[in-house]
Amino acid sequence: MRTEFDFINNLKKKYTLNHIGDDCAVLPKDSETDLVITTDLIVEDIDFRLDWTTPELVGAKTLAVSLSDIAAMGAEPKWALLSIGIPANIWDSDFVDRFYDGWFTLARHYEVELVGGDISRTPEKIVFDSIVAGEVIKGKAILRSGAMPGDSIYVTGALGGAFGGLMLLESGFRYSNSSKRHQEIIAKQLRPVPQLASGKYLSEHGIATAMIDLSDGLSSDLRHLCQASGVGARIYAKDIPILPALSEVTVAKDQMMALGINGGEDFELLFTSKEKNLSSLNLPDAQRIGEITENVGRIEVIAGNEITCLQPGGYRHF
Amino acid sequence: MRTEFDFINNLKKKYTLNHIGDDCAVLPKDSETDLVITTDLIVEDIDFRLDWTTPELVGAKTLAVSLSDIAAMGAEPKWALLSIGIPANIWDSDFVDRFYDGWFTLARHYEVELVGGDISRTPEKIVFDSIVAGEVIKGKAILRSGAMPGDSIYVTGALGGAFGGLMLLESGFRYSNSSKRHQEIIAKQLRPVPQLASGKYLSEHGIATAMIDLSDGLSSDLRHLCQASGVGARIYAKDIPILPALSEVTVAKDQMMALGINGGEDFELLFTSKEKNLSSLNLPDAQRIGEITENVGRIEVIAGNEITCLQPGGYRHF
Repeated sequence: MRTEFDFINNLKKKYTLNHIGDDCAVLPKDSETDLVITTDLIVEDIDFRLDWTTPELVGAKTLAVSLSDIAAMGAEPKWALLSIGIPANIWDSDFVDRFYDGWFTLARHYEVELVGGDISRTPEKIVFDSIVAGEVIKGKAILRSGAMPGDSIYVTGALGGAFGGLMLLESGFRYSNSSKRHQEIIAKQLRPVPQLASGKYLSEHGIATAMIDLSDGLSSDLRHLCQASGVGARIYAKDIPILPALSEVTVAKDQMMALGINGGEDFELLFTSKEKNLSSLNLPDAQRIGEITENVGRIEVIAGNEITCLQPGGYRHF
Repeated sequence: MRTEFDFINNLKKKYTLNHIGDDCAVLPKDSETDLVITTDLIVEDIDFRLDWTTPELVGAKTLAVSLSDIAAMGAEPKWALLSIGIPANIWDSDFVDRFYDGWFTLARHYEVELVGGDISRTPEKIVFDSIVAGEVIKGKAILRSGAMPGDSIYVTGALGGAFGGLMLLESGFRYSNSSKRHQEIIAKQLRPVPQLASGKYLSEHGIATAMIDLSDGLSSDLRHLCQASGVGARIYAKDIPILPALSEVTVAKDQMMALGINGGEDFELLFTSKEKNLSSLNLPDAQRIGEITENVGRIEVIAGNEITCLQPGGYRHF
């Protein structure tokens, strides 16, 4: 079965689509500014389950995943559109009002204006399409394609939490009746934080040569970045920042590492930087995890004396 | 039960949304140009049925409904994003390839570039979100809110065809094994034509004071335009252009009129114009159907000596 990544690559070739392949499309706005824009489809029982979360959190996460794409370009979010598809029984409940409450609470925080949208009935399941546009200084959007051999590879924050939270939810744990440590992990799944300040900092200071947000998982997203840049990568297991609370999910060190490498939806930033720029890198939560190599398509993980080649293990729809 | 229109009006008030309420949001682009942008959610078994159409036609209609919103602003379409949600069994078929074939055929015709999108799995039904952006000379976008008492009301094309086509499809008729007359009607439902040339003409020549596309039906859309403009309207039944082929669907004159007034999805343009501009109106398929009045919220239909007040009778999701 073809993956969605193969499908998109074929589409790009077949129809000569030059703006496709980054977290956002970058389009000229005026003489000083580029517009960046992204769309994310959020589907009930694929991306969220009503009995795992609250309508407010679904609203906030629907916006947050798109803000994360804006962050990955080093841009600042400006406005949004929101299409919602709702079954009749949900329309009659307070779900939609509470959903918008959550959406607008986050939107106000980041000064994002809702400028349009659509409302439709659906036969059964809820669906949202979140469209967010941002602005960046002309030519300063950070693409996936700018990494060069020798560049250092960084991630912000700690990894694996969102997937650990998903495991807890799937095992029957709920935020409201969980321990503090479990709540910390579940919150990573239900309440992701877009790394807008870090993204903008990296763009404004010209530090990052390439960037992507960690939505599919480090193994998949590092591969996307390497493919776009035509390079390979070497990362060091000991340097990958795993969320400490994940020891609540598994005590096995290699399983914790697998969560950090393959778990999606952390919405942290993965970026590359040249050695000469590192002196000006003042991002306390950024951690160097490896370097870009010339071995096109090869992603090595160094763990002690062992070298393994990383297979993409993140989330795929197909 | 609250309608989606009530819901949107409440949302506008509650969150002070100033860009919402037209076919597209209008946003400043550069010193000479405004950006217009729209989003339309298209849901299987609500907006289309797989056994009534072809994947290519679904692709083309998904784009066409958004192009119609661009036309209603008097703008020119430029680029698009497309989110698709697909169940696993459909992903394995040729549906998605054929859908994009249809989408791109129309996109090439209107020189629309696909710049982004998202692909997700869905549990059961297909869903699309179509986002299209266009450009218009700064300040020249035609809003719903510009109609003044005394303005003439016009529609392009002939009405009722799309709803007549829906009736035929619901009655078991299919395009492939229908008569030429039935095919003409069914095509209005399956293959709508966005009125981009007319929209642009009206904007460039400064003829229209207000405009909306006929997606929900004349009775609903004229009400939207009147509400936005704070006016009323009087229309003449004898002047409403009904698709002649509709006599295949019903021989009753009043039922044909009801189809023309309440049937949605014709994607023709409804616009208003000042008397002084009419001399420069060179739009052969535009038909004057009435005039704007000072009776705020009142929409009268004149049929012979009878005056009836029009109730919104078009399609509603809720």
